[in-house]
Amino acid sequence: MSILVVGTVAFDAIETPFGKTDKIVGGAATYICLSASFFSNKLNLVSVVGEDFPKNAIEMLKKKSVNTEGLQIKKDQKTFFWSGKYHEDMNSRDTLDTQLNVLETFNPIVPKDFQHSEYLMLGNLMPSVQKKVLKQMKKKPKLIVLDTMNFWMDNCMDELKEALKEVDVLTINDEEARQLSQEYSLVKSARKILNMGPKYLIIKKGEHGALLFDKKEMFFAPALPLENVVDPTGAGDSFAGGFIGYLSKTKDLSFENMKRAVINGSVMASFCVQKFGTEKLIKINRRDVDSRIKEFIKLVSLKQA
Amino acid sequence: MSILVVGTVAFDAIETPFGKTDKIVGGAATYICLSASFFSNKLNLVSVVGEDFPKNAIEMLKKKSVNTEGLQIKKDQKTFFWSGKYHEDMNSRDTLDTQLNVLETFNPIVPKDFQHSEYLMLGNLMPSVQKKVLKQMKKKPKLIVLDTMNFWMDNCMDELKEALKEVDVLTINDEEARQLSQEYSLVKSARKILNMGPKYLIIKKGEHGALLFDKKEMFFAPALPLENVVDPTGAGDSFAGGFIGYLSKTKDLSFENMKRAVINGSVMASFCVQKFGTEKLIKINRRDVDSRIKEFIKLVSLKQA
Repeated sequence: MSILVVGTVAFDAIETPFGKTDKIVGGAATYICLSASFFSNKLNLVSVVGEDFPKNAIEMLKKKSVNTEGLQIKKDQKTFFWSGKYHEDMNSRDTLDTQLNVLETFNPIVPKDFQHSEYLMLGNLMPSVQKKVLKQMKKKPKLIVLDTMNFWMDNCMDELKEALKEVDVLTINDEEARQLSQEYSLVKSARKILNMGPKYLIIKKGEHGALLFDKKEMFFAPALPLENVVDPTGAGDSFAGGFIGYLSKTKDLSFENMKRAVINGSVMASFCVQKFGTEKLIKINRRDVDSRIKEFIKLVSLKQA
Repeated sequence: MSILVVGTVAFDAIETPFGKTDKIVGGAATYICLSASFFSNKLNLVSVVGEDFPKNAIEMLKKKSVNTEGLQIKKDQKTFFWSGKYHEDMNSRDTLDTQLNVLETFNPIVPKDFQHSEYLMLGNLMPSVQKKVLKQMKKKPKLIVLDTMNFWMDNCMDELKEALKEVDVLTINDEEARQLSQEYSLVKSARKILNMGPKYLIIKKGEHGALLFDKKEMFFAPALPLENVVDPTGAGDSFAGGFIGYLSKTKDLSFENMKRAVINGSVMASFCVQKFGTEKLIKINRRDVDSRIKEFIKLVSLKQA
């Protein structure tokens, strides 16, 4: 089934305790597409880059079944650039530089062929941009997933809350859930957020796993304990790509299947963090994914006595 | 089956963002016994208190099937006292006051009837005291579980490593695992620690759950997300009590059953943190425990497609 992916395609420069990179290709939509490409071959991308964005990165996305018709390439302009440095424990980071460039005036245009996409993944972007995409859909998608971050809660909470009314699944981290709900307990927090619009809430806790909530149930998936984590950049987006990819592939939106989608999302995130940037996601194949899913299921499997 | 529990019986004064207590009854062995009492009616306690320790607290332990023959009551001396204040997120705390009192000269004496106990829980204590207990056992217990903390790693790492050679299960938190192994990755850390003696390692991550390792396998159990957490004191000890209690009850030391023991430990910890001190553990009954075990299993249950 077709998935419309909207989000940034960008340059990142990353520093972690394990090394640093020059400008490399990143951006939420890049990670989402790479991750979802393991589950879907109908990925429709809406994003924007500048003329400085490498053609071979676009070719790479095309090879991964991404339709880049909706990727605007702005003449004489520069691609969005983010630079950050992770702290010792890698659970927090400082932004060193943000150059919005093409993002400053980004007006998302959903090509005609994309307007009937069955799944919609709204990657982290200004809520008003996310809303513009929603308006262009000719038919309500089977599932709308929205990712956002504390920055938008600080700066445009009202628009974010407007957007939330229209989405099925919200993915945020634990701190963001607390900020959005003004509740410290994640259980209380989830209850409040599920009254803001989303039918499902996923609270991402990084190395501590992810919680899935609907109004009646709750499910917990750990993150896979890894020998080496070198760069957390893109983990949340890889999670989202695996999550929506799995749902689009299995066409089953029950809570039970959402649990499996969370596991698949966690699997994709676990690959992402093992190398800098998108390196690992580009390298792995379907067999790697299948074998890690097995590893994951073993980690949590519990036979009752 | 009989469980020998060695650890502190103490007074605590606790402050959390949700309130504060005067001097209340606490101590590792108290929490371990209360928690294990849901699984075993043969609990043998070895500990020490001062003459100031309330008789009714000892009576309460007796009512919970705890044999207090090994509880030394030191005339004209005072009970160990700890006072601490938890930070906003309750994952860290400051010690405000520690008065060792009777602990300073604690020489654990294992009564004759206790020397054949089948399970041994060495609660957090100076490693040399833990070793003294090991020496008094007439028969190697079926399972020896040892809990410790960073303080002993800072101050008597050599003795701790000596003690570790003789134990089956070590329970520590993530920071302590990193300190003991000098590895940041918990997977690498576990591998190193399992070469120091213990056959099993449990890494407790507080609200983020617990990891169980042996040399071949790994299992993750989350902490139950709760509406209200008011005081984390004793959570790790309640976990240990539930863990060893469940194993002694089921008499099955396979990895598969250890997983279930971890779940039972997590269930006991989830009760502990809902009230200050031991209040909740004293109040609940078997039915409460069973119903929460079900809740827990639902939280992690995953049907494969």
